[in-house]
Amino acid sequence: MSEETKEEIKNEKVDEEVTEELTEEALEDIVEEEINELDEAQKLATEWENKFLRVSAEMQNVQRRGNEERLQLIKYRSQDLAKKILSSLDNLERALAVEGLTDDVKKGLEMVQESLISALKEEGVEEVSYESFDHNIHMAVQTVPADDEHPADSIVQVFQKGYQLHERLLRPAMVVVAQ
Amino acid sequence: MSEETKEEIKNEKVDEEVTEELTEEALEDIVEEEINELDEAQKLATEWENKFLRVSAEMQNVQRRGNEERLQLIKYRSQDLAKKILSSLDNLERALAVEGLTDDVKKGLEMVQESLISALKEEGVEEVSYESFDHNIHMAVQTVPADDEHPADSIVQVFQKGYQLHERLLRPAMVVVAQ
Repeated sequence: MSEETKEEIKNEKVDEEVTEELTEEALEDIVEEEINELDEAQKLATEWENKFLRVSAEMQNVQRRGNEERLQLIKYRSQDLAKKILSSLDNLERALAVEGLTDDVKKGLEMVQESLISALKEEGVEEVSYESFDHNIHMAVQTVPADDEHPADSIVQVFQKGYQLHERLLRPAMVVVAQ
Repeated sequence: MSEETKEEIKNEKVDEEVTEELTEEALEDIVEEEINELDEAQKLATEWENKFLRVSAEMQNVQRRGNEERLQLIKYRSQDLAKKILSSLDNLERALAVEGLTDDVKKGLEMVQESLISALKEEGVEEVSYESFDHNIHMAVQTVPADDEHPADSIVQVFQKGYQLHERLLRPAMVVVAQ
């Protein structure tokens, strides 16, 4: 038996003797003290548990919000560049409208135009619909009286094309609308 | 004094009597039991505290990683659309190289070209440097012997321009390099 173990046993015996010598009253005090300490410890455990539960719930929120934000960022990531390219597309259309273009030039311009439109489309950018006037996607720059061919609220002419990225409008179409 | 308070006092007295009747031995048992319970409660408190600390540290990590990811997403958001637009820019350059363009057409094409380049630049897209050959940003499609005018590793000609988004390469430049 090691010296340390012997020492432990001796100490235990001393403790026992002390306990035996305690009066009933002293024991009651100890019980009371223990109960108080237990109460404190249980309160503390509950506090830490609650803190844990709160921070766990908060983390789930942080993760959920982070995922939503990431999806939105990815979905609309091309928005700024796409918006800026729209004016290049306008310029291209104007260049194509010039009279007396040689076939080569016309073909070249159309190729550029198609590649731009297809690049935008792949990123989710498309022209708005012109089915009937909708102030959410159209800007009426002129109105004409409705007739048999052009019923009220129909789009008569498109001055400048409108585009949207998924359901988000990049710019409204400038249109002539029948009224 | 309310009925409830009276009831409480009565109960307390009963408790006291019961306690007084306890033997020393029974009290010792209670002390031991209390000590065990206290031990358990303290262990539990420590466990919840540790769980709380772990999940708190994890949340900080989740938030930090989320922020880093968001910044990366924003920084390189235009990458895909920009890459696709590069071929439109190539087509434009080819159209501009056609001989016999009228001034109007040339002006129109240059306007489209400039607006595309400026849109890309605003999003962080720029041509690679051609200072000296660098296999990270250049692809040597041909080599020519170095001479006084073109020292070794200098770029003699650019077949197709290279572009980078911030420090990330979108496509290498196709070059003729002196060797």
